[in-house]
Amino acid sequence: MSHHSFKNDYSFLAHRRVLEALLRLQDEENIAYGLDIHSDNAKKLIQNTFGAKDSEVYFLTGGTQTNMVFISYVLKHYEGVIAVESGHINVHESAAVEGNGYKIITVKGNNGKVTAKEIEEVTHHYNDEHMVVPKMVYLSNSTEIGSIYSLQELKDIYVVCQRTGLYLFIDGARLASAITSSKNDIPASYYGSLCDAFYVGGTKNGLLSGEALVINHPSLRVNFRNHIKNKGAMLAKGFVLGIQFEEVFKDGLYFELAKHANVMAEKVKEVLKEYPVTLYPSPTNQIFVSLNKKAALSLIEEFRLERWSENDSEITVRFVTSFMTNENDVSELKKFLDKLFK
Amino acid sequence: MSHHSFKNDYSFLAHRRVLEALLRLQDEENIAYGLDIHSDNAKKLIQNTFGAKDSEVYFLTGGTQTNMVFISYVLKHYEGVIAVESGHINVHESAAVEGNGYKIITVKGNNGKVTAKEIEEVTHHYNDEHMVVPKMVYLSNSTEIGSIYSLQELKDIYVVCQRTGLYLFIDGARLASAITSSKNDIPASYYGSLCDAFYVGGTKNGLLSGEALVINHPSLRVNFRNHIKNKGAMLAKGFVLGIQFEEVFKDGLYFELAKHANVMAEKVKEVLKEYPVTLYPSPTNQIFVSLNKKAALSLIEEFRLERWSENDSEITVRFVTSFMTNENDVSELKKFLDKLFK
Amino acid sequence: MSHHSFKNDYSFLAHRRVLEALLRLQDEENIAYGLDIHSDNAKKLIQNTFGAKDSEVYFLTGGTQTNMVFISYVLKHYEGVIAVESGHINVHESAAVEGNGYKIITVKGNNGKVTAKEIEEVTHHYNDEHMVVPKMVYLSNSTEIGSIYSLQELKDIYVVCQRTGLYLFIDGARLASAITSSKNDIPASYYGSLCDAFYVGGTKNGLLSGEALVINHPSLRVNFRNHIKNKGAMLAKGFVLGIQFEEVFKDGLYFELAKHANVMAEKVKEVLKEYPVTLYPSPTNQIFVSLNKKAALSLIEEFRLERWSENDSEITVRFVTSFMTNENDVSELKKFLDKLFK
Amino acid sequence: MSHHSFKNDYSFLAHRRVLEALLRLQDEENIAYGLDIHSDNAKKLIQNTFGAKDSEVYFLTGGTQTNMVFISYVLKHYEGVIAVESGHINVHESAAVEGNGYKIITVKGNNGKVTAKEIEEVTHHYNDEHMVVPKMVYLSNSTEIGSIYSLQELKDIYVVCQRTGLYLFIDGARLASAITSSKNDIPASYYGSLCDAFYVGGTKNGLLSGEALVINHPSLRVNFRNHIKNKGAMLAKGFVLGIQFEEVFKDGLYFELAKHANVMAEKVKEVLKEYPVTLYPSPTNQIFVSLNKKAALSLIEEFRLERWSENDSEITVRFVTSFMTNENDVSELKKFLDKLFK
Repeated sequence: MSHHSFKNDYSFLAHRRVLEALLRLQDEENIAYGLDIHSDNAKKLIQNTFGAKDSEVYFLTGGTQTNMVFISYVLKHYEGVIAVESGHINVHESAAVEGNGYKIITVKGNNGKVTAKEIEEVTHHYNDEHMVVPKMVYLSNSTEIGSIYSLQELKDIYVVCQRTGLYLFIDGARLASAITSSKNDIPASYYGSLCDAFYVGGTKNGLLSGEALVINHPSLRVNFRNHIKNKGAMLAKGFVLGIQFEEVFKDGLYFELAKHANVMAEKVKEVLKEYPVTLYPSPTNQIFVSLNKKAALSLIEEFRLERWSENDSEITVRFVTSFMTNENDVSELKKFLDKLFK
Repeated sequence: MSHHSFKNDYSFLAHRRVLEALLRLQDEENIAYGLDIHSDNAKKLIQNTFGAKDSEVYFLTGGTQTNMVFISYVLKHYEGVIAVESGHINVHESAAVEGNGYKIITVKGNNGKVTAKEIEEVTHHYNDEHMVVPKMVYLSNSTEIGSIYSLQELKDIYVVCQRTGLYLFIDGARLASAITSSKNDIPASYYGSLCDAFYVGGTKNGLLSGEALVINHPSLRVNFRNHIKNKGAMLAKGFVLGIQFEEVFKDGLYFELAKHANVMAEKVKEVLKEYPVTLYPSPTNQIFVSLNKKAALSLIEEFRLERWSENDSEITVRFVTSFMTNENDVSELKKFLDKLFK
Repeated sequence: MSHHSFKNDYSFLAHRRVLEALLRLQDEENIAYGLDIHSDNAKKLIQNTFGAKDSEVYFLTGGTQTNMVFISYVLKHYEGVIAVESGHINVHESAAVEGNGYKIITVKGNNGKVTAKEIEEVTHHYNDEHMVVPKMVYLSNSTEIGSIYSLQELKDIYVVCQRTGLYLFIDGARLASAITSSKNDIPASYYGSLCDAFYVGGTKNGLLSGEALVINHPSLRVNFRNHIKNKGAMLAKGFVLGIQFEEVFKDGLYFELAKHANVMAEKVKEVLKEYPVTLYPSPTNQIFVSLNKKAALSLIEEFRLERWSENDSEITVRFVTSFMTNENDVSELKKFLDKLFK
Repeated sequence: MSHHSFKNDYSFLAHRRVLEALLRLQDEENIAYGLDIHSDNAKKLIQNTFGAKDSEVYFLTGGTQTNMVFISYVLKHYEGVIAVESGHINVHESAAVEGNGYKIITVKGNNGKVTAKEIEEVTHHYNDEHMVVPKMVYLSNSTEIGSIYSLQELKDIYVVCQRTGLYLFIDGARLASAITSSKNDIPASYYGSLCDAFYVGGTKNGLLSGEALVINHPSLRVNFRNHIKNKGAMLAKGFVLGIQFEEVFKDGLYFELAKHANVMAEKVKEVLKEYPVTLYPSPTNQIFVSLNKKAALSLIEEFRLERWSENDSEITVRFVTSFMTNENDVSELKKFLDKLFK
């Protein structure tokens, strides 16, 4: 291909600056297990960025791992976590949450988002001692279908959580795409007080790998490092993660990369609009489009798109932009669509 | 410090060539989840190197994770894994094996190594249906105290395992240090048939992170990738590991690095011998030395040594050499010891 | 109360003959852990009754335990079990299945019953290696809402299971109520070949406690006793269960008790029909009725009914009959309803 | 046999009075899940007997289950429980503790008993964040080899536990045999304050089954019933246990039965002394004796003894007395030994 695919946002190693930072520090000796100076710096930068000065920050390797490690730390085995049916933990993590011994209580959600009302209903319904005890709410921002929460929605959810004794945990695998969306009204600095824990995704935003888990709630930290190790998630060379997060947070590169992906997504949407396709509203770097099967299959092949769903006549496909998407990719898409629909 | 420490072999990011390989491939798009071409190449190189053409190779992120993922795949919850008391899984993994639901059956061992006789005894002893059922032997080569298995020892163990229905799994976090030891008599190419599974450690031998799990036994592979994901151990950017292993195996760099560390360890031992210390025999890159407490404490501080054990008069410390250890480090050690014992 | 409640079918110790059998054998010494002669006899009686001469039979203490022990034996942690949303394992077992590490994949069902079509759809949908792998179907007969499967329905389900590699497991906590229902068309003797495993419930049909798990599939038995012990479910005095099952199966008492409960349920329905209530169809010993709130609350109090659900104007309550329900209970119900609706 | 065996203390259904109590209450309707009046009465009797008025009491079905349920409630997966190597949880529970995800940290012990000194040493040794975190001490009284703790020993242990943040849990499968031993100096009424939790064994002392778990520590109770259910250990007919415990505690029958077994054990020891056997000291109802192999094998066959261990010339066997052992059994033993050694 003379262009990048639109398959996903984790098909390239890392932003060039991240790799250069690693090479630059090749001969520096560091303390192992995340107790190094780069991890410390990265933690401080993240605390400052997300209004989380009193929070603790832990670096983990991937999204599924982070969800599994944190949820298994918080819950007891008779407790459950509430999530939308389309939530990543419920669909695409090979039952890692249940595999570790915890039930997911699913709700329908609205546009990929759990609602305060649904949470409230769950707490009313699960009132019998033979039922699982709801203890946490899990949500993703941006969501698995590219939508984002408004400040009011998140506040309403957290109010219900606090009133009913539920912890609120935000999966931020694509947090940067939410924060830099043109539709977003939640400043990064609110996350330190808008939930009990969240994570800042690196894998899907320009790092080799790495997620920074930020725990706001003071009672959810005791021996957390032992727990990480117990789940096989403690990196010997923790500084590999610390250096990467330090690099992208020291001057805002982290948000630049996500902003770039979002801008590219807008351009892709502008292109798509001109053709006989159904474009679903999405304010972030994931774009969902339905079109006739033949065209869809061509697009899937050429741009390695994920096939999301289908009915008798149409296939819905997903476009994802990333820090690597460029103007040429958009032009090539336009050329391809021209041929396809001409 | 104007010299490197002797604390461990995972205090530096990676060998320069590894980092350069990553930078070189920065703008190459790859397939996610380890299904990329670099992972494929690395698998073939490893299959060839270890006489394991019919084996399957899986890349994971760290040693504890690899142990946890493989052991939890093989065992049922009423089954146990035999290991020496000093085995890594028994001591330094925060109970990750038990935390996932599997008992470790410990034996005393001999010089850090489990013996065929001990394994046989365990199979005789655990003969009651209310006891755990032994189903696997876990051993490390080189061991946690730097010793290595002879070919005869490993063969004897595998014979017992096969006769008694036990799987043999070799923790190769420091496999390269064993294979390149001057005392070693087990060619790399034997590992494909000397056990049911083993792993090829990258983290402790010049990679950013990464262990290559090689499964020889054909019945231990079904849905193994689902299992990896279920344990939170599937990297989205699997090619990060594939590229690194490809780089160090394409021309033998992997063994060069370990050989270098072993040679440096020999030099360290030569130096240590000249002072009033007790040097324990070790043919690999871990050196254990007992000396008077005052001297030990100075050494610990200057070279960031691990304190292994102590009695009333002496402390035993550990020196570890790595791909980064150089002649200057050895000279500085000598200078320091001169001052200390002068 | 001068009458029994209609709360459930486990409010009395056991049928008198069961208790007398125990007393009669008070001074008989037996072999522990279910290896006694009564357990053997009971196994043979159950094998004969259910057309399961080549099956294995294991006695466990309760329904949740039996579900947990068997499901955790069959599944790996990346595999899941399909069940209707209203399935006992999904609702009323405090997440015992997930707590042990296994995901439940829920389907809507029809009248409390999973359908062959739904199972087929699940196997199509869960086709990605990052999703849980469906491996078992769980269904209850009679169901949690009193309905029963027809022979055709069960056959259709088992055909799909066998074609798609799923094990079929039938929760028989109320199997006797299904088999003795006037609407039933599945002979007891078919169960040995209609599924891979099922259990014969004792707790809800006149025993102190006890469920007989019958495993038809020959590959699902290896070390099953070790597994039972590992889950804390092996009774030292296994003969307590063996003696009870022997007593009720030696001359058909088991089915007599269930038949009696079903007949009483018919009489209760006859009575209820005469009043302004909505009676839901149910061919077994659980009866669901909706009526105005005031009347419902009176009934709930007088007959200790379970409140099943409610809307703005009505409450749905559950009546359960048992081996202890008698004509007087029915008359008292009638008298009470007369007063209530007069 | 015209005599009972000395195989164990769980080969008979239950004391006659227990069975009669059940029969007497056959037609009494009760509330399910242990919320009945008999369970309440039994709890109060147990609280009074064991000086545990502020403690909570829960009825479970067997010893392994009780250990598994309580230990899994208290520990997190990176924490471990200290026990002697011969401890029941470590040897004869098919890895139920590890199977649920918790490491057992073993110590040698002294005469089957863990010592305060050993506990202290463990807390010093496990001081690294990559090691398991000791959090509980498990001990059995009487122990697995029939020995009992002195008051001073238990006090010393609890002092260390409280100072080092460990919970103390006493396995009382044979608590009655300890308390009624002629060597015992710990009144039953001390148990409410001598540990954080203990259980009062019924299975091995005249009940059909049943253990009463008494939790003294106020922070170890939240949602404990949900946890019991989650482990498949909640009996629908909880009153089956409540009625039994009520019967044996209402007038001291519980201790009478154990006292009887201990007295019978004394008589057995008096008999054994007269023959060429090595009798190990034991103040409770388990007696260990070494003798030549031929004689041992005869005894094992005639009295169904457990073979405990052996060396080249001798076998050590175990005699167990129970509430059913009588003078005739002792006489028959004497007659048999006369013949054997004549």
